[in-house]
Amino acid sequence: MATVEWTGSAVRLIDQTKLPDEESYVSCGTSAMVAKAIRNMVVRGAPAIGAAAAYGAVLALGEPDPEAGLAALRGSRPTARDLFWAVDRVTSAADPLEEANAIARESVDACRRIGRLGAALLKKRPRIITICNTGALATVDYGTALGVVRAAQEQGLEPSVLVLETRPRAQGARLTTWELAKLGIPFRLLADGAAGRAFQQGLVDVAIAGADRIAANGDTANKVGTYPLALLAREHGVPFYVAAPVSTVDLETPDGSAIVIEERPAAEVTTFAPAGTPAWNPAFDVTPARLIASIITELGVLQPSNLSALRPAVTR
Amino acid sequence: MATVEWTGSAVRLIDQTKLPDEESYVSCGTSAMVAKAIRNMVVRGAPAIGAAAAYGAVLALGEPDPEAGLAALRGSRPTARDLFWAVDRVTSAADPLEEANAIARESVDACRRIGRLGAALLKKRPRIITICNTGALATVDYGTALGVVRAAQEQGLEPSVLVLETRPRAQGARLTTWELAKLGIPFRLLADGAAGRAFQQGLVDVAIAGADRIAANGDTANKVGTYPLALLAREHGVPFYVAAPVSTVDLETPDGSAIVIEERPAAEVTTFAPAGTPAWNPAFDVTPARLIASIITELGVLQPSNLSALRPAVTR
Repeated sequence: MATVEWTGSAVRLIDQTKLPDEESYVSCGTSAMVAKAIRNMVVRGAPAIGAAAAYGAVLALGEPDPEAGLAALRGSRPTARDLFWAVDRVTSAADPLEEANAIARESVDACRRIGRLGAALLKKRPRIITICNTGALATVDYGTALGVVRAAQEQGLEPSVLVLETRPRAQGARLTTWELAKLGIPFRLLADGAAGRAFQQGLVDVAIAGADRIAANGDTANKVGTYPLALLAREHGVPFYVAAPVSTVDLETPDGSAIVIEERPAAEVTTFAPAGTPAWNPAFDVTPARLIASIITELGVLQPSNLSALRPAVTR
Repeated sequence: MATVEWTGSAVRLIDQTKLPDEESYVSCGTSAMVAKAIRNMVVRGAPAIGAAAAYGAVLALGEPDPEAGLAALRGSRPTARDLFWAVDRVTSAADPLEEANAIARESVDACRRIGRLGAALLKKRPRIITICNTGALATVDYGTALGVVRAAQEQGLEPSVLVLETRPRAQGARLTTWELAKLGIPFRLLADGAAGRAFQQGLVDVAIAGADRIAANGDTANKVGTYPLALLAREHGVPFYVAAPVSTVDLETPDGSAIVIEERPAAEVTTFAPAGTPAWNPAFDVTPARLIASIITELGVLQPSNLSALRPAVTR
């Protein structure tokens, strides 16, 4: 299973809207097709979006109107920082395809390092709560928050996971359970609203989430529902970690109030209500830096207040 | 539309598992049928369960083995206090049917008083967030938390409502939106996890929930997800109210840790996951008294720390 793969003339994506019922692939031979796949969440997860957009930019640069293609990619989804970072890297590179390949390759390396650094924060048999999908499907491979779980398993720590369903698109129920089952890591699925009861019952040792954009002060945009999860963790004295590559850190955005939060179609929310029911569908929320114990990046485990240490790395 | 109605020889219930797609009724002519309807959530909502159980007890008392019928009713669901209170009232009454009728009649009066007292706490154009369904469907008529919204509308306060979907059974999406649409009260549906973003965006003036059991110290069991909602409200300086009749107050239970929290079948949670996916499905959580601004009962708006003032009323 490869989340994002260059096939020589196209980007091949596993269709995440079809999982877990069907394992099918979409081949995008134009930048417009990549932009559409990102917008429709055929590919999702900030690092995976970044890699897909990188190859999308390679395609755009070979098209009659490169600027239109790049604009469509940049306009596909607003929140994940990796998208903009990847497009910028590819367009300013001498060899765009080599740069896109480097982005994909580096992403896997980053995830493995994040996993190792994150697992070092865990004790034996950690009971981990997580939201959305942050595994191989959300990245090029291995995962961010789920990469930490995976590394913990590889190190024999015997982790178990409480998986929040993650409405409205149910990435937890559809994708994270699918990945954990394949990895043989024990887990239980629960409704998003049941997180509070899990903490009340003392079932949680640590909360780990991914990120879509991390502002300079450590405020972190991630899948909607992450902020209440972080609030519960603080209330119960449980550490809340963010696991994300440096490509998700945006030092040009001072704090969470400056992060653009995507609002998606109401139809995603009205699954159980009559079509046309009025609905509000913010795709992300912002977890304030003060609720985050540490941000686990491939360059180290950082305090949210200390992200400026990354400046040399992110401005190269 | 009548949620719970005695037809002379049976209890007629609107089938809440079928709403909003289908408005159909179930007639229960035996106490076992009533117990099953409660367990399967054909009827749900603490006051509605109480009224249904009252008529179920009337039926049981006329059956060959009354004790078996009463035991089945008491064993149908553990958390809602109204169920046990109603069965006890009917079984110790001289005229069981008259007592059940009184329970139903008093419940409607209580809801209307709760609505009036609660609406008095609101300003003009209150933006209210709520969870689950606490309207006419959760009661005999009018509602508890939704009764407050309804009273506010009747008084010209022009309330609007953010309706949490309320997974796993989606009572918010299925039932509350249906009731609000009928009442002409503006609302928007949102995923449970989106509550945090609503507070962050300043979209909430007040949070109101119902209750299934309120302990003597004010700790309140209600639909799972209520506790995180109350935590968000406190974090954002928004008052969190519980609206419930005195029949939900259980002065014999000292605090929330002594409330039995029902765990329901995993299959309710695996809507978006393959059948058989491991899941955990607590139906309720406990909101600590310190997060509750006031408890709105038909006998007055009480501080959670002051529930003992109800002792004369609940021990009559």
